[in-house]
Amino acid sequence: MAKPEATRPASRLANLLPCSNWLKGYSGNKAGQDGLAAVIVTLMLIPQSLAYAMLAGLPPVAGLYASILPLLAYTLFGTSSTLSVGPVAVISLMTATALAPLFAAGSQEYMVAAMVLALLSGAILMVMALLRLGFLANFLSHPVVSGFISASGLLIAIGQLQHILGIAGGGHNVLDMLWGLAQNLSRTHGPTLAIGTASLILLMLARSHLKGWLSRLRLSPMLAANLSKAGPVVTLLLAIAVVSLFDLADRGVAVVGAIPRGFPPLSVPTMELQLLPQLLPAALLISLVGFVESVSVGQTLAAKRRQRIDPNQELFGLGSANIAAAVSGGFPVTGGFSRSVVNFDAGAATPMAGAFTALGISLTVLFFTPLFHNLPQAVLAATIIVAVLSLVDLGAFMRTWRYSRADALAMITTVVGVLLVGVEAGILMGVGLSLGLFLKRTSQPHIAVVGQLPGSQHFRNINRYAVVESPQVLSLRVDESLYFPNARYLEDRVAELTGSHPDIKHVVLMCSAVNLIDASALESLHTIKQRLHDAGIQLHLSEVKGPVMDQLRKSDFLEHLGGQVFVSQYDALKTLDPGTTQAALEK
Amino acid sequence: MAKPEATRPASRLANLLPCSNWLKGYSGNKAGQDGLAAVIVTLMLIPQSLAYAMLAGLPPVAGLYASILPLLAYTLFGTSSTLSVGPVAVISLMTATALAPLFAAGSQEYMVAAMVLALLSGAILMVMALLRLGFLANFLSHPVVSGFISASGLLIAIGQLQHILGIAGGGHNVLDMLWGLAQNLSRTHGPTLAIGTASLILLMLARSHLKGWLSRLRLSPMLAANLSKAGPVVTLLLAIAVVSLFDLADRGVAVVGAIPRGFPPLSVPTMELQLLPQLLPAALLISLVGFVESVSVGQTLAAKRRQRIDPNQELFGLGSANIAAAVSGGFPVTGGFSRSVVNFDAGAATPMAGAFTALGISLTVLFFTPLFHNLPQAVLAATIIVAVLSLVDLGAFMRTWRYSRADALAMITTVVGVLLVGVEAGILMGVGLSLGLFLKRTSQPHIAVVGQLPGSQHFRNINRYAVVESPQVLSLRVDESLYFPNARYLEDRVAELTGSHPDIKHVVLMCSAVNLIDASALESLHTIKQRLHDAGIQLHLSEVKGPVMDQLRKSDFLEHLGGQVFVSQYDALKTLDPGTTQAALEK
Repeated sequence: MAKPEATRPASRLANLLPCSNWLKGYSGNKAGQDGLAAVIVTLMLIPQSLAYAMLAGLPPVAGLYASILPLLAYTLFGTSSTLSVGPVAVISLMTATALAPLFAAGSQEYMVAAMVLALLSGAILMVMALLRLGFLANFLSHPVVSGFISASGLLIAIGQLQHILGIAGGGHNVLDMLWGLAQNLSRTHGPTLAIGTASLILLMLARSHLKGWLSRLRLSPMLAANLSKAGPVVTLLLAIAVVSLFDLADRGVAVVGAIPRGFPPLSVPTMELQLLPQLLPAALLISLVGFVESVSVGQTLAAKRRQRIDPNQELFGLGSANIAAAVSGGFPVTGGFSRSVVNFDAGAATPMAGAFTALGISLTVLFFTPLFHNLPQAVLAATIIVAVLSLVDLGAFMRTWRYSRADALAMITTVVGVLLVGVEAGILMGVGLSLGLFLKRTSQPHIAVVGQLPGSQHFRNINRYAVVESPQVLSLRVDESLYFPNARYLEDRVAELTGSHPDIKHVVLMCSAVNLIDASALESLHTIKQRLHDAGIQLHLSEVKGPVMDQLRKSDFLEHLGGQVFVSQYDALKTLDPGTTQAALEK
Repeated sequence: MAKPEATRPASRLANLLPCSNWLKGYSGNKAGQDGLAAVIVTLMLIPQSLAYAMLAGLPPVAGLYASILPLLAYTLFGTSSTLSVGPVAVISLMTATALAPLFAAGSQEYMVAAMVLALLSGAILMVMALLRLGFLANFLSHPVVSGFISASGLLIAIGQLQHILGIAGGGHNVLDMLWGLAQNLSRTHGPTLAIGTASLILLMLARSHLKGWLSRLRLSPMLAANLSKAGPVVTLLLAIAVVSLFDLADRGVAVVGAIPRGFPPLSVPTMELQLLPQLLPAALLISLVGFVESVSVGQTLAAKRRQRIDPNQELFGLGSANIAAAVSGGFPVTGGFSRSVVNFDAGAATPMAGAFTALGISLTVLFFTPLFHNLPQAVLAATIIVAVLSLVDLGAFMRTWRYSRADALAMITTVVGVLLVGVEAGILMGVGLSLGLFLKRTSQPHIAVVGQLPGSQHFRNINRYAVVESPQVLSLRVDESLYFPNARYLEDRVAELTGSHPDIKHVVLMCSAVNLIDASALESLHTIKQRLHDAGIQLHLSEVKGPVMDQLRKSDFLEHLGGQVFVSQYDALKTLDPGTTQAALEK
């Protein structure tokens, strides 16, 4: 817990440009750490960038473009020292889902639309930063995000099978995809399948065993860990060599083909205004999902080093990264989980590691793109599959199911929605259901009859504790804010409970869990008071919180209440039934 | 408060057919009361039924049809002894709004569609009754319903001005309507305007003064009150006489024209299946609004006689009434405010008064419809205007504004939405905003630092009460359920508050207002516990409610908490800082 940081007033400059903080103490030592991390992340990013561009329906080079300027922008404006920003699987899938129905894949319009999507997403994040709307991201609950990422991973993996098999595929839901694959299965292209399967095996071995094998070569654990990160690049180079050697590109193995060399031209993407409203919902969801993914990774890694990140400044950093992607031929980006973990493990000390990574990718774009001409698409597909399958988290589902059926239901809905309807529909269904279940819950609140715990001034549920009840006073604890969905329910429950206690003279509503009484509930309290009065019973309140009391004073309810508002339930009982109360206290 | 009824177990038959209860003790005396009320309500209903049918865009006779079988159905299945069911202004407006874009006004398809709408609405109410979904109606909050009814009243009144002026009009929002009237104002039809204005004046005088004048004729107050209810029928007969005498129908005064005599044929309305989805949203809103209006009238009147109505059985009663309307040439119906009050005041003793009223309307349909041939539409418009202007309630707005800006904002949104966008849009905007404001509120909950009230075991906010704080224990009261929208906010606030209390060793989260801890909040509690632990602070909980504790036990949180879960905040402080606590208790 970084208390000094939390209380130290930061200057305005440091607020806007967090880099001014860490640049002051920047040393050669830190540059060494950052440089090493950058080399490793660059080696990992090259295949991933190419692959995620393909996933987004874009030419592979767009992935490299999206890994240069956005990283520099985040270095300037971001607050996490280890977050690695760039193309990520889920956001690339959402990009493809948003653009595929509107533009022909691979067309110039499609590429421009991807840049516009990044621009919109960047603008939305900036506006959220300015209006401090970061809290909106909290509406994507844990179970929904977890279900969304698992299902997206599965969807992406299945979508890549066509490249491994070398056949045509497509479809926007799992059933369509599987059906398409099944229909074309007989046309499987042997050499492509061989390369794809071999890459899958190599990549999985690299991920699970390479570090162990390198350690046995008497390398230091640190060096072994870092070298093992080059596994995907080696796989990629191997595949290029095989394709070139056996002229497989001419024999039907789909390859990446010619990639332009040099930096992308800088330009602000423009498109017909009437198309913007069609992209806006997708841009909004991409912004929110990207922000949530990035902030959770950032916070997790920061916590491990007892640092903190500032969510509102993160909005600004990610917004600037997306705008940078938009003006340099890229597509929507965010902080990625796997590459940030690699960056962290490789010892990145400051956001400068991101700038160094951008330099690495720049060198790649300037000098090495001809190398990738013979890179088989099957290898990129294998890269994607291995990356996304690690996102599928069955354990999270089991834990959630055990803890709360409502949360598990939201998770299942999201998963089913993503797989069968679509990524955006899935996440909206999950959030909608979560909120709906919460509202349904608050509309029928738990209302407990409470009694005094012997020997104390504390009141608890009569069904759970051996408490003392007053024969004349009915103590009701309402376990919810009183607002319109539950106002009438309260009327009915109070009527029921007083009906089953025929001898009482007073009802005390214990309001310790009431954080709000809205206008509808105020009407209901009026009604309850009046009905009780007609039955010869007086209504009182207790433990009304300050803000609620302030509001009640703005109406005429307290004047007409007749009863009292007690500071505590104990005070209420001490006044209304002193005998029973004193006896219970002395027990 | 009818305690005996509430506790007496009702038989299954009585549950399904509430009439079996009151029919047992039915006497000549009660029949006399019900008969008198029925005569008065019938006299009031004849002009209203004709007028509301016109408002719904239907031939006037449909209003009479909708006032026969539906009343009988409610008599059998309803639970209120005084509610009067039939066409009402707001529901008629919603019917017209739903059907006008789809069918030509006055066409056969339009009439069938109105019947289908009633059928759908009846089916929805029945399903809600079976699934016990009556609580859904509670989501229409007081301010939203109040704003909706006021704005609808205004919209209806402005929409009727064209009939008073005898010009063409139209439009679905206030601006269009006023603009249309302004354009055609020069074509105002003199005789129509004269009749319309005279009727308006007569109807208003009848409403405000007739009872007083009749009392001065030495009639008993009861008789005077009942006779005064015949004002609208007398106005209507006067207008018919004037039109017939001066042949005004031939001189351009729009009249009702030929009305078929006799009962409507019974038939189940059918339409093309693809049109059903277009009617469904309107049917849903009509059901909810109708149910809310009906139940609030029913409950208000029942409370005056210390009776109760059963909302779920009311769903069944109103559903059967709408299905009855659908098969007998009617349109959607519900319990109306003004006519139910008249029924109540006239002394209706049982739902039999509704059956008698149906008899009265039947006689009208069988024998008196030729009488209405020369009835000017301007008189019907005046009837509507006088009826709906009483729905506009500025006082409710002022009270709500004083009490709660959030509620007032929901009300204003509904009013503006209804007037400028449309009735359905208005109500959805109001409900959406209400829920949005509530969710926003719960996403940034009030978190109070609490201390011990001297001389008691009770803990309150240190900013509002002179309380005793422990130097080592920070007591935080979280004033909201912990769920996904506020989970991260809690993390941040706890970090801030512990940051500003550097000497503390323990944090106790007082959970008296926490009614739920969902999976996202559980993750946050894990994080908070871990961060506090890293800073050398132990987290504890207190006053965790039974249902919340049950759920926490399903996770491993309590095993890893390290701290304790105390029954009360006092117990926590007595254990963690006995010295300060004992001293405060004895102060």
